[in-house]
Amino acid sequence: MSLPLVVGIAGGTASGKTTVARKIHEALSNRRVAYLDMDAYYKDLRDMPFEQRKQVNFDHPDAFDSPFLVSHIHALRDGEPVHKPVYDYTQCVRSAQTVTVDPADIILVEGILVLHDELLRAELDLKIFVEADDDERILRRITRDIKERGRSFDHVTRQYFETVRPMHRAFVEPSKRHADIIVPHGGNNDVAIDMLVGALRARLARAGRAMTGEFKIPVSEGPVG
Amino acid sequence: MSLPLVVGIAGGTASGKTTVARKIHEALSNRRVAYLDMDAYYKDLRDMPFEQRKQVNFDHPDAFDSPFLVSHIHALRDGEPVHKPVYDYTQCVRSAQTVTVDPADIILVEGILVLHDELLRAELDLKIFVEADDDERILRRITRDIKERGRSFDHVTRQYFETVRPMHRAFVEPSKRHADIIVPHGGNNDVAIDMLVGALRARLARAGRAMTGEFKIPVSEGPVG
Repeated sequence: MSLPLVVGIAGGTASGKTTVARKIHEALSNRRVAYLDMDAYYKDLRDMPFEQRKQVNFDHPDAFDSPFLVSHIHALRDGEPVHKPVYDYTQCVRSAQTVTVDPADIILVEGILVLHDELLRAELDLKIFVEADDDERILRRITRDIKERGRSFDHVTRQYFETVRPMHRAFVEPSKRHADIIVPHGGNNDVAIDMLVGALRARLARAGRAMTGEFKIPVSEGPVG
Repeated sequence: MSLPLVVGIAGGTASGKTTVARKIHEALSNRRVAYLDMDAYYKDLRDMPFEQRKQVNFDHPDAFDSPFLVSHIHALRDGEPVHKPVYDYTQCVRSAQTVTVDPADIILVEGILVLHDELLRAELDLKIFVEADDDERILRRITRDIKERGRSFDHVTRQYFETVRPMHRAFVEPSKRHADIIVPHGGNNDVAIDMLVGALRARLARAGRAMTGEFKIPVSEGPVG
């Protein structure tokens, strides 16, 4: 195993996956941590007529530019900083801004469909699925969308039945099969988060020792004679 | 947190929970590990007419003497060895034999209903649920019961539909709600088992440091004056 360690954190909308990612990030703050949220990698729809953009299903895997996200993981692995896009949700395009993400010891990749895409999955050293009951998730989503995003209850409900729920059942929930570990009770499960942090620390320490050559394996100089 | 650390490992029949427990046990073999399998704590039915014993539902929580198991956890916590019963399945009684289990740094408590009983649950510092698909579990159970226990396919099937499956749905599966962490893919999920071991090692080290006084908290000598 070598650094960086790439950790995927998936789960349904409002399951608490961002909280899990944030708590892991904070607990490992003595290490270099890179954070890639899959939402930043929505496809840029500037070539599509504006009215049509509003019809796009943003809960479907096709809405994401997964190869672009994978290319960023590759670059970080190679020790190069990346310019993470900042998505402009009003226009459905990448804004002029970007966020520079530096190479790190651990890369957290978070989003509803992180475990769905096969190429993305192949990049992950550890696959976590954060689980919460459907009713808890929708209640949290309603609270968040109304309070923080100024949406109406009717808008949230319509969107939930039109895209969020069917895409969850078709893609998010089935992707749980690929998880190495499942964290129930969402972001408030500190026992599980503490375990994940402990295990990641142990892996980082092992990988670090291997890289500094403490456990160096002697290399043969080629066939004798 | 203090030692011993009590870890519950639950899951349906043939889910791989025994394998998970064994692998954790092996990985922590440099520590003192006690192993309590809940199956050893079936109720002694010697006061019941023999024919009636055969009608008992051994997949129901009532078949287990949970208070006896809890009393053994208490004794081990108090530093006393316990005499784990050896169940005689042919007579449905506790045999004359027992197995001595010594106090340990970590106590593994394993069984289908470890997370069901409230008093037992209260003893657990970490609650693990091992998950495997129903079809995989029944195929493994058939293989095991026919090859290792000399049972017929018809016997396994009848028992499965009469008690195993309904009790799984009524008690085992719902007890998953109490889990701190869920291990999918049963006993072959070495990524998860490795994580659990790493996290348990970290907890043991922390608890050990606290107990040897490395992190000793100064004790007040009582109110001044």
